[in-house]
Amino acid sequence: MQHITNMDRILLSYGEGGKNTFKLIKELFLESFRNPILEELDDGALIDDFVFTTDSFVITPIFFPNGDIGKLSIAGTVNDIVSMGGEPLYISSGFIIEEGLEFDILKKIVHSMKEISEKVPVKIVTGDTKVVEKGKCDKIFINTSGIGKKIINVSKNKIFPGDLLIINGCIAEHGISVIVARNEFNIKSEIISDCNELWSTLKNIFKYDIKFMRDPTRGGIAATLNEIVSDKFGIEIWEEKIPIKESVKGICEMLGFDPLSIANEGKMLIVSSRTDAEKIVEELKKYPDGKDAEIIGEITEEHRGRVVEKTITGIKRIVDMPSGGNLPRIC
Amino acid sequence: MQHITNMDRILLSYGEGGKNTFKLIKELFLESFRNPILEELDDGALIDDFVFTTDSFVITPIFFPNGDIGKLSIAGTVNDIVSMGGEPLYISSGFIIEEGLEFDILKKIVHSMKEISEKVPVKIVTGDTKVVEKGKCDKIFINTSGIGKKIINVSKNKIFPGDLLIINGCIAEHGISVIVARNEFNIKSEIISDCNELWSTLKNIFKYDIKFMRDPTRGGIAATLNEIVSDKFGIEIWEEKIPIKESVKGICEMLGFDPLSIANEGKMLIVSSRTDAEKIVEELKKYPDGKDAEIIGEITEEHRGRVVEKTITGIKRIVDMPSGGNLPRIC
Repeated sequence: MQHITNMDRILLSYGEGGKNTFKLIKELFLESFRNPILEELDDGALIDDFVFTTDSFVITPIFFPNGDIGKLSIAGTVNDIVSMGGEPLYISSGFIIEEGLEFDILKKIVHSMKEISEKVPVKIVTGDTKVVEKGKCDKIFINTSGIGKKIINVSKNKIFPGDLLIINGCIAEHGISVIVARNEFNIKSEIISDCNELWSTLKNIFKYDIKFMRDPTRGGIAATLNEIVSDKFGIEIWEEKIPIKESVKGICEMLGFDPLSIANEGKMLIVSSRTDAEKIVEELKKYPDGKDAEIIGEITEEHRGRVVEKTITGIKRIVDMPSGGNLPRIC
Repeated sequence: MQHITNMDRILLSYGEGGKNTFKLIKELFLESFRNPILEELDDGALIDDFVFTTDSFVITPIFFPNGDIGKLSIAGTVNDIVSMGGEPLYISSGFIIEEGLEFDILKKIVHSMKEISEKVPVKIVTGDTKVVEKGKCDKIFINTSGIGKKIINVSKNKIFPGDLLIINGCIAEHGISVIVARNEFNIKSEIISDCNELWSTLKNIFKYDIKFMRDPTRGGIAATLNEIVSDKFGIEIWEEKIPIKESVKGICEMLGFDPLSIANEGKMLIVSSRTDAEKIVEELKKYPDGKDAEIIGEITEEHRGRVVEKTITGIKRIVDMPSGGNLPRIC
């Protein structure tokens, strides 16, 4: 892979969570801000017994089926904290608003933030508001940073061959619902985003032997699995076990998207010990956001550093880190 | 003052730190996210023994004399932590980048962040990168959130008549340098921004009897003093004592700006006990960012809830919360 040079320009793909995003993070941010906490490359920073995480939301459209940029901005940061094994406690909200935005729209967004933060519950304790001239941003961008209390230890170092891979429900719903809402392809569908906070559901499985968690947002489970895999083990996933709605699959086929690369906003990939995996799935199934939970794969001795999918036809194919180029501003 | 209605649109002045900003915060954010920590309306949240703060930076131009959006984004959040009586420890950085931005420019900005964060020192421990299509933001926006350890107790409740008001140096330099850099008025000047982190300087006065601190950024010292003042006391400032460079004063007069309303990015307003004020100024003067420190006013029994300036000619005038309308995107 080529290095970024000073003559390069920032492409949309640098923000899509795939190969180019990681290139930018490694060659610029890690290189410059070098410190052991940042180098963990987790979804947040683990500092003593607390978790610190940040995320900016630039999704378009700002309202989509089953959510809006406000709900997403709280759910996204809550889920990052949860993925680090933390209980979400405090959130900051930084608004960048385009001049001329209807107050009514801002109010709806803020109301969504209030609703979902009360559901978690998590407190929005500090904030900031900037307004830029018309045409200098796209309606509204929101940054949320979050602080959580570490409840369980999760770490890539705890993953070993034989461990199982769980997901709490159907994939690719957020990305597809947003693409449909953009109306570029003139598709009608009833697909709604899975956008939700996962603390209410996942806190119930923290008592089991969880090795690692990560929420497969930008770049879908393909990107997340490629982030998890290391030179110490491989990952095999089983197509027939991966929960996906027929309608979502249909649109993916029609548009030529790999559902594994499509964003989720209410899903968690969980690596657990073999002994606890069934119990975790059973527990998850008790909750709306876990009712379609499945064991979808395992950690292997073989093909270290590679994510492999065993397809329904029995063929094994390599699942690469998505290289981006088609789905900007999904979150 | 009229309330915001659903028919209203967001104006640039809602982000300028003056009357409209506070209206938006009070009528929407506080009303929705209501909790005792947020209601303190400080520059950050004080939670047990730590400080949590957030700020988004949308300044234009992104490079200005003595700084750029990268340096500003770290200095701004560090100074917010310091103003809460905290030692800055950890920072998150969330980038929103416009497609097509030269990598070389991003690299310079990141390098500035690295340099100033090492100077504090503060660790950048987590981050996020989003890229939006060309024309959907203005080159780059940066959110930084910060965590600090509470070192001293500062609170409005500690302020009493008789306390003195200190500033660590000359006012209005950031705002004026940015206005000149925008080149809209075709003015040449040597004025440079005061943009800097203040931990290195202010940690040396934490041993004195400090009641309250706030950095007078957007809206200048006029906005900050109006935030500090309450129905329990008034504030009087003395024009002859307020440090300001002749060149800055000249440009303010030429353009019709009140220097009290112009942004600073390396200044702190400090309320201290009468006994310690001289010692604090003496200590501040030992450091480059404190060499022009002065006692500029006092907390009064009279005119409670009002900020009053005693001008050089001896007249007293009311200093109002700026109502904005002329200086967007200064930070």
